[in-house]
Amino acid sequence: MNNLLDTTTDVLLMGPGPSCVFPEVYEALSRPTLGHLDPRFIKIMDGIKELQQQVMQTKHALTIPMSGTGSAGMETMFVNLVEPGDKVLICINGVFGGRMADVAGRLGAEVDTVDFEWGTPVEVDKVAEALKEKTYKMVAVVHAETSTGVANPVEEIGLLVKEHGALYLVDAVTSLGGMPVKVDEWGIDALYSGTQKCLSCPPGIAPVTFSDAAVAKLKSRPGKVPNWYLDLTMIVNYWEGAKRAYHHTAPINMLYAFYQALFNVVEEGLDNVFARHAAMHRKLVEGLAGIGLEMLVDSEYRLPMLNAVKIPDGVDEAAVRSKLLNEYNIEIGPGLGPLAGKIWRIGLMGHTAREENVNRVVTALGNVLE
Amino acid sequence: MNNLLDTTTDVLLMGPGPSCVFPEVYEALSRPTLGHLDPRFIKIMDGIKELQQQVMQTKHALTIPMSGTGSAGMETMFVNLVEPGDKVLICINGVFGGRMADVAGRLGAEVDTVDFEWGTPVEVDKVAEALKEKTYKMVAVVHAETSTGVANPVEEIGLLVKEHGALYLVDAVTSLGGMPVKVDEWGIDALYSGTQKCLSCPPGIAPVTFSDAAVAKLKSRPGKVPNWYLDLTMIVNYWEGAKRAYHHTAPINMLYAFYQALFNVVEEGLDNVFARHAAMHRKLVEGLAGIGLEMLVDSEYRLPMLNAVKIPDGVDEAAVRSKLLNEYNIEIGPGLGPLAGKIWRIGLMGHTAREENVNRVVTALGNVLE
Repeated sequence: MNNLLDTTTDVLLMGPGPSCVFPEVYEALSRPTLGHLDPRFIKIMDGIKELQQQVMQTKHALTIPMSGTGSAGMETMFVNLVEPGDKVLICINGVFGGRMADVAGRLGAEVDTVDFEWGTPVEVDKVAEALKEKTYKMVAVVHAETSTGVANPVEEIGLLVKEHGALYLVDAVTSLGGMPVKVDEWGIDALYSGTQKCLSCPPGIAPVTFSDAAVAKLKSRPGKVPNWYLDLTMIVNYWEGAKRAYHHTAPINMLYAFYQALFNVVEEGLDNVFARHAAMHRKLVEGLAGIGLEMLVDSEYRLPMLNAVKIPDGVDEAAVRSKLLNEYNIEIGPGLGPLAGKIWRIGLMGHTAREENVNRVVTALGNVLE
Repeated sequence: MNNLLDTTTDVLLMGPGPSCVFPEVYEALSRPTLGHLDPRFIKIMDGIKELQQQVMQTKHALTIPMSGTGSAGMETMFVNLVEPGDKVLICINGVFGGRMADVAGRLGAEVDTVDFEWGTPVEVDKVAEALKEKTYKMVAVVHAETSTGVANPVEEIGLLVKEHGALYLVDAVTSLGGMPVKVDEWGIDALYSGTQKCLSCPPGIAPVTFSDAAVAKLKSRPGKVPNWYLDLTMIVNYWEGAKRAYHHTAPINMLYAFYQALFNVVEEGLDNVFARHAAMHRKLVEGLAGIGLEMLVDSEYRLPMLNAVKIPDGVDEAAVRSKLLNEYNIEIGPGLGPLAGKIWRIGLMGHTAREENVNRVVTALGNVLE
């Protein structure tokens, strides 16, 4: 019997995630497993909550990691907050906005959408119009649209949502740890992220935060949350208080990794981390211009950590990606949906966002395209 | 800032899970993260499916790991199969049978239960009576009740369920990899497990298997599965076929660990693994008798991997567990529900089930109780 793990190798992960993992996070992953009720593990849980609050810039008490990947964070947000018939407005300018509409719809929400061309941002005026026409219980938007490389105006939309009196729901899977995500200042009521983007931890954990208003909606539900695994009314009893009531066995080693990743980000300092992402993004755009490549998104709306690069006419985009992976050990991502075949997606997330990596991908792409 | 991970230490995990992790699994966890669409990772996925089929003793095509802990496996089973109004019969003789009833009920199933005293097995005759009284779409039972240490007669119940024409759903969280779990031979239509028991991998993955009949029910649903994250109709497109359609980012490193754990079990040989568990169980029971401790469950229904030990009169059970953890670095578990304060739960799961560990816990318990 062959052990297939022998085929794993150190790839420079410059796609839309997973990103390169911090060396300390790999070490954390393989520390001895503790029981989920061991007092030492409970201390680590408390440490995670504190660091997660710092990275999310929030004081929300309900700020915890869920036991699944980023998409489980999306499911957690909607399944806990949506009751059948709730009117929900969702802004869509890429795959992940669309996914939110699908998730909320399955849970019985009455979903309306405001849609925008992929590669352009959500327009605040159009959201304002929609909010004038109907009363919504919730408004949801993706901060960093991983499928297009666009940054959405989360702060501005937040002001509108507050005036309207709705709960404000945000996807920060790709933005958290790579650009400011100010949960409290921006009036965000529920937000989720993943570990495999700018936190540079393998996929498997979904950090979430819920405001007091969101928790009040959750607690006022007439029935049970229709998802036992993600039911926050029970999960909080494990993450808070003296009793630490067992709900499900926490993913201990992934939580070690998540703790270490948060630790690294906070130790470097949020402002330094954001500045590094921005600088590497500028360097990448410059380097790509030097080999004749253009960006999809207008400069003012570009994400630093997810760069949508136009594929030149006549280039076999999949062959380029294969060559990068097989000959240069670099992974970049393809376009999705209407952008398939039109863009590559180059990630500069967390530990990936370093000068040597920018140089390496630009040189390699230049060689392959020659 | 202190790194709290420095407080982790190598505890002998002899509770109800997590269990001691194979050294090779720790190594697998910290291998370089690959992209979830990297051809090398897809080979590992294929390897996982094949080994998981061997360990589950099934040829079901839909045999894959879900991206969550064992409880996410329970949620996966019910959310994919239950449609509102479906009549479901659930056998309950412990916490996890009760949890199945809760999960299925939240999803709109009409749940009936057959209940048995904790510490005793599900009685086949009572299940037969219930099946005579009403027509059920599904019947569910826990194979190894982790809360009590009882083995339920899964094979015998399976024969009844087949006659009745219902789907047969089984929880094998604690049994898989520690005693025979013959999915095909026993006519099981849907089964889930976890990684943190007899597979000796950290918690975080839920292996599941669905028969063709279960898949047919899933495909005939009139609407969407009311849970995007666990929707098997989409997830199979990532785990099968040439296209490997992205659904959510797979938990790469946890899947490395799961692959390695399956590899270890298959390499030792299922029969050898089961014999080792049985031998260690006998040795433990003998050792405990030597220090005056008795088992809760009648010998013919005892699980090898989860041993419910009666607490002697007048003993402060929590103090004993604390002492074991703090002075001997051994974790054992308390009783739950009606068995709280009445039993300890001593796990002999996977890599934990070794002679040196049995000797260590018996000696330590003897010292503490002296």
